[in-house]
Amino acid sequence: MAQHLLGLEHLTADELTGILDAAKGFVGVGRDVPKRTDLAGKVIANLFYEPSTRTRLSFSLAARRIGAETLDFSPGGSSTAKGESFIDTAQNIVAMGVDAVVVRHSSSGAPHLLTKHLPGIGILNAGDGAHEHPTQGLLDILTIRERRGSLKGLNVALVGDIRHSRVARSNIHGLTKLGANVIVCGPPTLVPPEVAQFGVEIAHNLDDILPRVDVLNLLRVQFERQRGSFFPSVGEYAHLFGMNGERLRKSKSDVLILAPGPINRGVEITPDVADCPNSAILEQVSNGLAVRMAVLKMACGK
Amino acid sequence: MAQHLLGLEHLTADELTGILDAAKGFVGVGRDVPKRTDLAGKVIANLFYEPSTRTRLSFSLAARRIGAETLDFSPGGSSTAKGESFIDTAQNIVAMGVDAVVVRHSSSGAPHLLTKHLPGIGILNAGDGAHEHPTQGLLDILTIRERRGSLKGLNVALVGDIRHSRVARSNIHGLTKLGANVIVCGPPTLVPPEVAQFGVEIAHNLDDILPRVDVLNLLRVQFERQRGSFFPSVGEYAHLFGMNGERLRKSKSDVLILAPGPINRGVEITPDVADCPNSAILEQVSNGLAVRMAVLKMACGK
Amino acid sequence: MAQHLLGLEHLTADELTGILDAAKGFVGVGRDVPKRTDLAGKVIANLFYEPSTRTRLSFSLAARRIGAETLDFSPGGSSTAKGESFIDTAQNIVAMGVDAVVVRHSSSGAPHLLTKHLPGIGILNAGDGAHEHPTQGLLDILTIRERRGSLKGLNVALVGDIRHSRVARSNIHGLTKLGANVIVCGPPTLVPPEVAQFGVEIAHNLDDILPRVDVLNLLRVQFERQRGSFFPSVGEYAHLFGMNGERLRKSKSDVLILAPGPINRGVEITPDVADCPNSAILEQVSNGLAVRMAVLKMACGK
Repeated sequence: MAQHLLGLEHLTADELTGILDAAKGFVGVGRDVPKRTDLAGKVIANLFYEPSTRTRLSFSLAARRIGAETLDFSPGGSSTAKGESFIDTAQNIVAMGVDAVVVRHSSSGAPHLLTKHLPGIGILNAGDGAHEHPTQGLLDILTIRERRGSLKGLNVALVGDIRHSRVARSNIHGLTKLGANVIVCGPPTLVPPEVAQFGVEIAHNLDDILPRVDVLNLLRVQFERQRGSFFPSVGEYAHLFGMNGERLRKSKSDVLILAPGPINRGVEITPDVADCPNSAILEQVSNGLAVRMAVLKMACGK
Repeated sequence: MAQHLLGLEHLTADELTGILDAAKGFVGVGRDVPKRTDLAGKVIANLFYEPSTRTRLSFSLAARRIGAETLDFSPGGSSTAKGESFIDTAQNIVAMGVDAVVVRHSSSGAPHLLTKHLPGIGILNAGDGAHEHPTQGLLDILTIRERRGSLKGLNVALVGDIRHSRVARSNIHGLTKLGANVIVCGPPTLVPPEVAQFGVEIAHNLDDILPRVDVLNLLRVQFERQRGSFFPSVGEYAHLFGMNGERLRKSKSDVLILAPGPINRGVEITPDVADCPNSAILEQVSNGLAVRMAVLKMACGK
Repeated sequence: MAQHLLGLEHLTADELTGILDAAKGFVGVGRDVPKRTDLAGKVIANLFYEPSTRTRLSFSLAARRIGAETLDFSPGGSSTAKGESFIDTAQNIVAMGVDAVVVRHSSSGAPHLLTKHLPGIGILNAGDGAHEHPTQGLLDILTIRERRGSLKGLNVALVGDIRHSRVARSNIHGLTKLGANVIVCGPPTLVPPEVAQFGVEIAHNLDDILPRVDVLNLLRVQFERQRGSFFPSVGEYAHLFGMNGERLRKSKSDVLILAPGPINRGVEITPDVADCPNSAILEQVSNGLAVRMAVLKMACGK
């Protein structure tokens, strides 16, 4: 049966572990490994209503590396410009014989809406508004698990714009379920107090928490999303919340540094930190492919 | 030998039936059916000089589901911007080892022009100006035949902008040849009197013809094509020519409702009608894939 | 081991001949030839930071015809818009399991830069600024070799904008190494005197050199690149440097005419010349596919 992935919030620890274990089996499927045929004969539609490089390419390549055909749809120059509704577009594309739909949309809940209108089709959320980005959460968690063996008891800090970040939301849900202690850290304008209800610790001073942190996940400053001014300047953000060489020396020697990217070098992370051995930024990308292979297979009922 | 599909006007009833029968053999090739290898080693070029979602994706997926590689070309950010002519672009793409070309162009006759300059290459018209859109005509007809068994003697009404519609033109030619009675119905500004020469009945009042109609094909109001004002307002169009629940109750109980889409809900069709059992809108999309597989094979001389 | 192709300048005659011989083995792989599996399981990324039709499609189809998957990246609507650096984008894409990268960029040296940051990955230059476009040079040379058997002693004239042309640069390096006599011919504003250091003859009058020329390579007038005004008008350019029927009659009867395209008919070449038997313009395109198959294989260490 086709299984959706709409978010990590409503998954159990066992379900999360199941996906991570399946993804683990795909780690390294890439260079110099023969193409797999898990999804031979299947068709995956990628509906991207927001710009994306890595997520779109990652889903597309993941699908093709395990044997599926892909249909890429984005609204520019298409029937959307002709006034077609989101649901009609999706139903039309699925009527071409599609088995699963990957969707990114600026509206929270868009993937959930598709599950109501596309019976029998697996829906995968590739980011919906400020709600969730579950494959990003899973690949962050898989990367930690690959480096540390287990999530249990680790202090994981999410740093930056917690308020607008679907990546933060998926990380919070996944990490807490798997036994990590999550600290969210950012300027008060970007850390809504309500987030405490999810069982996380709130911090506003990065230097205070650094000595006890095992994993730092440096959220991207999303210049393109912030209409208001939530912090005075980029320089001030980098000064207070950017990870740099000095802060690295004050951290645990084996602190693991993640960033969902695309990174702004010199803002949330300095180049020396981005490229140091503690950084697992490129492993995250590789693990992303593995996670997407696993959930694509799940979405096709395999 | 490579066979072109430029329009339905110059095909015989036997030729039309041949294509429909071939397409019938592909209905259902899609989900959970192994990929076919009919066109293994072949390359199909899709040249789309006008925006398109469903037609482009449908041709592309149809080609890949039966084993071909595809080359997608659209003029944005390309050699067309550098001043290259249409024919030169096509010849260049074909010189890469292409077997058949699918072309959509705003100029009537563009596909015909390609047949003169690309010897040995099968040319498929995916819509040329206001001339023809033969695969759309074929998929409409296939959908009627699948639901009703035969076209013979059916009253088929094409409703809306007959003047600018290449879909109407292909439907008229195909339907009349296969023995259907075609009624074209729209405001006088959008139904040119000359259309009578094709052996169709002209009507301007939808309510008058509804009780005797077996199939309604609701053409899309093409806001993006209409420079002049051919009808006073969208509201008035919907009032006079839109299909709605009330009109459905005045129709034959088994009236079949088609729409080439992308549909404007609330204009040419209301949501309740679009989603009712009489509507075959999504079957049209699925049948479109089958039609395109059949003509792609034909174009490759298989 | 993965081999790069950054330019022809630093290759030896033997290395050039090796690539041409490998490409020769792929001539004709296209229509009606079964797909090959040389690169089965490999992934090729195409990073195009400048618009391109034929080069991008040619690399993409070449890769797929010999069994590779492709990842197409261009900066529009992507992480580049989000501020990601060129190197970070490339490293991220490669982390998805890519074996070789094809790159076009407006900055000379961009492909060379990638070799420093992507260890173990084959880098192929698809055009970098005004530096080199080595696969275009190779396909021009392969086309001459296919028609004439050898380059040795041939008088090859490159006509037009030598100053800004990466195609000219790659041709000069490749042709001189393989024993051709290269004449560069254009208005003084577009032929920098320093080019003489590469062992080529400089000419400013096309009619003077025509009678002794064996091969004419007519560079495209790149309207989109020329900020300043290097010649008075397009009409004057065509009059002085355009190849036309009259000039063809003054040439050797077997003069071979090449043009990297996309051609401006009536500017650097008149339609009658472009389409005459001396013209090998479309053979260049077909040979381009063969050259790209050869260098892709090389870049994947096969």
